[in-house]
Amino acid sequence: MPPIQHLINGQLVDGGSRQSDVFNPATGRVSRQVQLADAVTVQQAIAAAQAAFPAWRNTPPLKRARVMSKLKELLEANAERICQLITAEHGKVLADALGELQRGIENVEYASYAPELLKGEHSRNVGPGIDSWSEFQPLGVCAGITPFNFPVMVPLWMWPMAVACGNTFVLKPSERDPSSALLVAELALEAGLPPGVLNVVHGDKEAVDALLDSPHVKAVSFVGSTPIAESIYRHGSASGKRVQALGGAKNHAVLMPDADLDNAVAALMGAAFGSCGERCMAVPLVVAVGHEVADAVVAKLKVEMAKMTVGPGDTGNPDMGPLVTRQHLEKVRGYVDQGVAEGAELVVDGRGLQVPGHEDGYFLGPCLFDHVKRGMRIYQEEIFGPVLGVVRVHSLAEAMELIDSHEYGNGTCLFTRDGEAARYFTDHIQVGMVGVNVPLPVPVAYHSFGGWKRSLFGDLHAYGPDAVRFYTKRKTITQRWPSGGVRESAVFSFPSNS
Amino acid sequence: MPPIQHLINGQLVDGGSRQSDVFNPATGRVSRQVQLADAVTVQQAIAAAQAAFPAWRNTPPLKRARVMSKLKELLEANAERICQLITAEHGKVLADALGELQRGIENVEYASYAPELLKGEHSRNVGPGIDSWSEFQPLGVCAGITPFNFPVMVPLWMWPMAVACGNTFVLKPSERDPSSALLVAELALEAGLPPGVLNVVHGDKEAVDALLDSPHVKAVSFVGSTPIAESIYRHGSASGKRVQALGGAKNHAVLMPDADLDNAVAALMGAAFGSCGERCMAVPLVVAVGHEVADAVVAKLKVEMAKMTVGPGDTGNPDMGPLVTRQHLEKVRGYVDQGVAEGAELVVDGRGLQVPGHEDGYFLGPCLFDHVKRGMRIYQEEIFGPVLGVVRVHSLAEAMELIDSHEYGNGTCLFTRDGEAARYFTDHIQVGMVGVNVPLPVPVAYHSFGGWKRSLFGDLHAYGPDAVRFYTKRKTITQRWPSGGVRESAVFSFPSNS
Amino acid sequence: MPPIQHLINGQLVDGGSRQSDVFNPATGRVSRQVQLADAVTVQQAIAAAQAAFPAWRNTPPLKRARVMSKLKELLEANAERICQLITAEHGKVLADALGELQRGIENVEYASYAPELLKGEHSRNVGPGIDSWSEFQPLGVCAGITPFNFPVMVPLWMWPMAVACGNTFVLKPSERDPSSALLVAELALEAGLPPGVLNVVHGDKEAVDALLDSPHVKAVSFVGSTPIAESIYRHGSASGKRVQALGGAKNHAVLMPDADLDNAVAALMGAAFGSCGERCMAVPLVVAVGHEVADAVVAKLKVEMAKMTVGPGDTGNPDMGPLVTRQHLEKVRGYVDQGVAEGAELVVDGRGLQVPGHEDGYFLGPCLFDHVKRGMRIYQEEIFGPVLGVVRVHSLAEAMELIDSHEYGNGTCLFTRDGEAARYFTDHIQVGMVGVNVPLPVPVAYHSFGGWKRSLFGDLHAYGPDAVRFYTKRKTITQRWPSGGVRESAVFSFPSNS
Amino acid sequence: MPPIQHLINGQLVDGGSRQSDVFNPATGRVSRQVQLADAVTVQQAIAAAQAAFPAWRNTPPLKRARVMSKLKELLEANAERICQLITAEHGKVLADALGELQRGIENVEYASYAPELLKGEHSRNVGPGIDSWSEFQPLGVCAGITPFNFPVMVPLWMWPMAVACGNTFVLKPSERDPSSALLVAELALEAGLPPGVLNVVHGDKEAVDALLDSPHVKAVSFVGSTPIAESIYRHGSASGKRVQALGGAKNHAVLMPDADLDNAVAALMGAAFGSCGERCMAVPLVVAVGHEVADAVVAKLKVEMAKMTVGPGDTGNPDMGPLVTRQHLEKVRGYVDQGVAEGAELVVDGRGLQVPGHEDGYFLGPCLFDHVKRGMRIYQEEIFGPVLGVVRVHSLAEAMELIDSHEYGNGTCLFTRDGEAARYFTDHIQVGMVGVNVPLPVPVAYHSFGGWKRSLFGDLHAYGPDAVRFYTKRKTITQRWPSGGVRESAVFSFPSNS
Repeated sequence: MPPIQHLINGQLVDGGSRQSDVFNPATGRVSRQVQLADAVTVQQAIAAAQAAFPAWRNTPPLKRARVMSKLKELLEANAERICQLITAEHGKVLADALGELQRGIENVEYASYAPELLKGEHSRNVGPGIDSWSEFQPLGVCAGITPFNFPVMVPLWMWPMAVACGNTFVLKPSERDPSSALLVAELALEAGLPPGVLNVVHGDKEAVDALLDSPHVKAVSFVGSTPIAESIYRHGSASGKRVQALGGAKNHAVLMPDADLDNAVAALMGAAFGSCGERCMAVPLVVAVGHEVADAVVAKLKVEMAKMTVGPGDTGNPDMGPLVTRQHLEKVRGYVDQGVAEGAELVVDGRGLQVPGHEDGYFLGPCLFDHVKRGMRIYQEEIFGPVLGVVRVHSLAEAMELIDSHEYGNGTCLFTRDGEAARYFTDHIQVGMVGVNVPLPVPVAYHSFGGWKRSLFGDLHAYGPDAVRFYTKRKTITQRWPSGGVRESAVFSFPSNS
Repeated sequence: MPPIQHLINGQLVDGGSRQSDVFNPATGRVSRQVQLADAVTVQQAIAAAQAAFPAWRNTPPLKRARVMSKLKELLEANAERICQLITAEHGKVLADALGELQRGIENVEYASYAPELLKGEHSRNVGPGIDSWSEFQPLGVCAGITPFNFPVMVPLWMWPMAVACGNTFVLKPSERDPSSALLVAELALEAGLPPGVLNVVHGDKEAVDALLDSPHVKAVSFVGSTPIAESIYRHGSASGKRVQALGGAKNHAVLMPDADLDNAVAALMGAAFGSCGERCMAVPLVVAVGHEVADAVVAKLKVEMAKMTVGPGDTGNPDMGPLVTRQHLEKVRGYVDQGVAEGAELVVDGRGLQVPGHEDGYFLGPCLFDHVKRGMRIYQEEIFGPVLGVVRVHSLAEAMELIDSHEYGNGTCLFTRDGEAARYFTDHIQVGMVGVNVPLPVPVAYHSFGGWKRSLFGDLHAYGPDAVRFYTKRKTITQRWPSGGVRESAVFSFPSNS
Repeated sequence: MPPIQHLINGQLVDGGSRQSDVFNPATGRVSRQVQLADAVTVQQAIAAAQAAFPAWRNTPPLKRARVMSKLKELLEANAERICQLITAEHGKVLADALGELQRGIENVEYASYAPELLKGEHSRNVGPGIDSWSEFQPLGVCAGITPFNFPVMVPLWMWPMAVACGNTFVLKPSERDPSSALLVAELALEAGLPPGVLNVVHGDKEAVDALLDSPHVKAVSFVGSTPIAESIYRHGSASGKRVQALGGAKNHAVLMPDADLDNAVAALMGAAFGSCGERCMAVPLVVAVGHEVADAVVAKLKVEMAKMTVGPGDTGNPDMGPLVTRQHLEKVRGYVDQGVAEGAELVVDGRGLQVPGHEDGYFLGPCLFDHVKRGMRIYQEEIFGPVLGVVRVHSLAEAMELIDSHEYGNGTCLFTRDGEAARYFTDHIQVGMVGVNVPLPVPVAYHSFGGWKRSLFGDLHAYGPDAVRFYTKRKTITQRWPSGGVRESAVFSFPSNS
Repeated sequence: MPPIQHLINGQLVDGGSRQSDVFNPATGRVSRQVQLADAVTVQQAIAAAQAAFPAWRNTPPLKRARVMSKLKELLEANAERICQLITAEHGKVLADALGELQRGIENVEYASYAPELLKGEHSRNVGPGIDSWSEFQPLGVCAGITPFNFPVMVPLWMWPMAVACGNTFVLKPSERDPSSALLVAELALEAGLPPGVLNVVHGDKEAVDALLDSPHVKAVSFVGSTPIAESIYRHGSASGKRVQALGGAKNHAVLMPDADLDNAVAALMGAAFGSCGERCMAVPLVVAVGHEVADAVVAKLKVEMAKMTVGPGDTGNPDMGPLVTRQHLEKVRGYVDQGVAEGAELVVDGRGLQVPGHEDGYFLGPCLFDHVKRGMRIYQEEIFGPVLGVVRVHSLAEAMELIDSHEYGNGTCLFTRDGEAARYFTDHIQVGMVGVNVPLPVPVAYHSFGGWKRSLFGDLHAYGPDAVRFYTKRKTITQRWPSGGVRESAVFSFPSNS
């Protein structure tokens, strides 16, 4: 197969002399090459986006929104094909790929509400005979830089709303699993997006730097690790761009003594091990309030984890597929070793897992640590793998202090039946997305996604209502009409025979 | 062909012993029969809607909205079939039917924004530890009673938003042209609307009364003539229903001396004669400010009217088709006679028109009156036919006084280039929908449609944001959680070995 | 003292030949007379309001809002004087009068947000080069008819927002206790309200009918009993007015077995007996789920009720003052007799109460019934007195069925610690205002007040965001500017020397 | 008089060993000293703000809002005293100081709408039995760094909304004219702001750096010159703060040939010379479309400028007072010299102005240049003085190209009568605040203030709705309650005797 190309101005084109391998994580084999854009290629994409901007900006929002509706139809019609690409390059199981796509489609749906979302505020008579109103106008060329772990969904957090607001876009998806985002972009063209409105360039740091260096790129949305998010935020902000950069997470789920434990354990299994834990909203830490609930949850998790199946994502519907790369597998395995060395109790050890027929796949069995403590690296750092740790505390106050002390503030969750506990927790916890008996409190597409503390750099959250504000700038008009015009002067004396 | 049936609980069923003829207005021949529901049939439809309500109300708004998205796809795919039904039973030309359908689809689109539109207002800490929020909950069974002139669009103003808000619905379309609305309802079922959520009953006053008499119908939307609108509003309100009843119109277009006359005349031709003037937003009156512009507009209209083609709506793409019924043809012709008798100058007389091969069709050529005056019946009453009148005034002030004195206040329009004139007119005129150089200022689907004065009975306008409020009732929750619960009591002394 | 006059066009004036006694309920003695307006007087007030409308409507919202801010200051400065008038004519204790005034001030505060609340929706490019926006324009003359039980607060629910929206107003307060509302209106003039913007007429059915009959009154807000509310709604709606008519209530408080009982009892004492139960948000019914909690709550209530003090509202800070009139006292006492006759168990009997030195005052001690049952009149009817009944049920489902079967749906409340119970109850109960551990879930002024079922006739609730919609009508403007104007034609060739 | 102190934790305190002179610009004499905070002093202020945060954050928004209402009263009551301080230290004439204060009060008013503005979005049933809502929670300690030119208004753009949203604040006003902002802060304490909620530190770069370096400051609002704005934005953003930094401006007013010239000239006089042009919304450039209008406007301006009076701001109500400092006077005078050198035609020369008795005051007469051209420094740079330049262009297109090419995009204005020209200009111009026949299109307090391009660094504009978003962070809660709780289990079989 030929290497994966860029999509610029509505055409698949070559660009850049370097290439990178794309692997199938379930087999460990290279499946394709992807071209890595050089600065010139990126500039061509930006130029295409710039050229497309004036006409697209003037296209009525309703027409722009309808392209999103049509894209939604095409995504549904092509779901299987898209999900197979996700699984083949990312490794996640097909059912999970479908879940990802579904969440992405919801963002396309929300972008199709643009005519409503773009309404400005209109004030008659701010002074005598003076009116004032605001408009939310597009920025121009926007860029998105997206991670490997949701190759379809995270791009769909960004560009559909950006283009629905009248901007044009350059997307740089992860070079680990670029094919599905590219296919979605081609479907957007088929749905009626004019050439140049959405462009896709593959690449690595060189492409990212070209996007950040361009004075023509007005806004950058990024999702990835915190160090890179912070760097992109600084770099982009310093060059006058609007930036929202989402980074890492270490989401704590707090178990209260009154929680419905069966329900909580079922929820935690998916939250901890779904997509191998390679999600920024995964739950890698359970904070149990009291030994009784701690003992019980560890016991139940052990039982449930023993039932889990691990294998290639496209076959036999396993619970978990492989990790994304060999390097990442080694890193996660290293964290398990580290946890043992730090003194946490490894209750379930997934390190010995073999998937017959897929010995070179990047598989790791689910792991469970008990007695994880605050100072440990497996507590502090984002592992991004199927490793769940249990921390034991004496009270909800202690649990909250723990969460608030952590560097990250992306998501958290409380399991309880008690209204007061839920209210106190949700009100005070220093975390941007909070669940009550919902382990992965990913906001629906008509709310917005964003962490606090070092999980997000920028003022506005991703997707939902905040995305409308991120991808537009406010213009305020104040208008007064002088008297003495046609209205007052056009008074006719009718001829006498009238 | 068998008579047209009702759609109740997802099934086409018979109901009522009476039937009514459905005519093809282009030929004057009966094409089908339609069953007329008796009270029992209507009660069956209401019962089906009641039974479907609890589950549908609990269906997440996003899922309800998706049925609307799917319906939009189906309407686009079946556009030709729907429009042929419209033309066959209503008479309007195919291009106009397509325009109607397109406007209807926009309302389906807007209903698909329900997850955004149904958001309530949430206030943390209305008092110490007390939160309050509002929800917009569905009413239950709602009903729609719709007119012949937009057999597809007006029903789509109503039930899509009603059901997107979680209500269930009984629609009674006009028995003159019932087939297209029925087909659309069948497509809604195909799109995923559960049986009973939308029901269609055909009928006349007996069916209307049964809807109004039922204590299970919580809201009624009506579009038709002012006397019936008023009667339905009184009857429905008195029985505790929420009612919005849209009635008649007599929309004035004001021509200022500085108007772009070519532009205005082109706009007026469509506004006056499109769909034979059988639109509540049609423009049957031009108010010319000054004799100079009056003379010019009459001269230009005469020229343009001479070019118009009139014929069957499904053949050869004429400018105008037949009127809807023989009775209506006679009534409109009578108004032309009346205008002559009252002393208006009949500049263009369409009464002699013959359409070869369609001698029994309900055709009338376009008519133009000059020197129409306030006291004339052709000035005061809604003709609902292809009859345009020119009124001559001395100033914008006189034009506005004329408009504000009229019984109706549906739409109006000002043709000018002057910002001040436009601002003054739009601010002060006592009309609900105002155009500036836009002859038919029908609000887009994401704004709301409603006249003032005797053009609308009720507090809330049709479709758009107001429809969300009309089809929901506000519930306000105030919540405080007592202290001393699980949060504060669950503090554990850990055993010494921990 | 001279009889209480009307306030018309900024002047205190006489009007009508009839007068009515105003009593002091704590003494049973007549304190003043109030003039009762005849139709002519009411028409004068309406005419004053009409005359003031054009200039007030054109006054920028910010200026109108500032009058509300200033009024707020004056109400705070005159609080003692206002509250003494309330207590002297209504009877409620001073602390309660102050609470009422405070709630009223909050509505004045909210009306002062008018510049924000009146913002319309603005859409650029609804079509190519076409913009559309909505405005919320005032209706004209509005009227308010208010009850005796909140002589200051309920008028302040109405006219401050009405006038902040640009309307002018005629208020008819209760003729039982008219002085405080009149004083507030005089303070509004002092705050800068132009003469005629707010007018006060005192009166009875003749005045009400004159308001309802006037074609110049565009909207009526009413609070009172359900039969009159319904009649006013019908009468007003039929004559083309916008009407919101709030009626009776019978608010149930549900006690779950897990409720914090001390907290609940403390809350219920105020909710049942505050202002002698003469509140539409009072709690006259406790629904106890299970005998255990029923027995406990009855026992605790008995203890607390024994501690209550009853006496004149202006002396010694008692818990409860007199009822409003002798007739009302007799009526409430009759309900207690009726309850005994119907077989409810009268646990605490307040009928024998004597207040030394105030033997002619309209005092009744607090009463408690246990084993109240669905069929009893004391269950079905609104008593509006210090009579609390306990109903015993087996489950929350039964409690909810009971509530939903009742004619009224004003307020209700659930006492529990359980999040799920609260969520289920608030979602499904057919009541407009729902409390969780909040006995009187009166929405704060920035939310809206309204019951469901026969507790409110009309589409929009009182005060808060709904009041903005009630006191304005939507106007939608669609605007396109023809090309070829000054922009394109004004291109100058500069002279060569430039 | 003792040197001006800092306000920390509710107390006036000393801090820092350095001091700076405060001058009276009308006399050129030192009137007082102001203490310059060192880093330790700033940290004390931040610590006070941190300590005050938890209680203030938990104070219901309505109570916080009421402090703003009370402050509004106090500002009105103390207006004269505040304005005298402004004039004494800044130099602007008293009437202008009053205008500034009035605008500031409007921001206090808007902050008092906090209960409405802080409402989050609530969605019932985002999934079956799952609810989600957003809250806008305060950030913590915020800081404001404000310029000399609006010593009262610009601080009031910032801290009232910040504290109304629940934040605490450290303000560093300009050390040139610090007294009025300090007085306002003292009035805020009097109005009920708890100690520590608002702190004022005076200082220069050392204080600014201490604010920017503190990890406890979560957000910084800045208004000043573009180079410093950019530096603060970079510095603050890099350290993880939310920053909005407003910089310079060069606002063009475009005169169309159809403009009402008398009206435009009257408007331009104030816009160019009010407050000596020391406003970021001043109009220093008139762009005349066609020589005819250019000649006319220059002629009229010359006449009007000859009538202007210049003198000390507190005496005799002159049109213009002195510039702020001697250095600034020299700088502005230098620009006039520069313009002459660059070849612009100096039509009115204010350099020779002497104000008798105030020979050491920093006075400069109004200056008018004609034939200003794009390449000149007096065209490119912000002069911030009473110097108006006329640029001549051939068409509106050329005027717009000129504006869009300029570095700044703060405000602009079009003078015309033509609706189409206004619509095209407001839609397309790359400027954040646009006037139509309004020379200084400063948005009212319930809209937001912000320029585009290098006039503002940050995503959100100042004051108005954007300020609510700037001073809060979004938290999204997703909540599900497990079944099987008290609701379902609490079903009692009643004993047989019940």
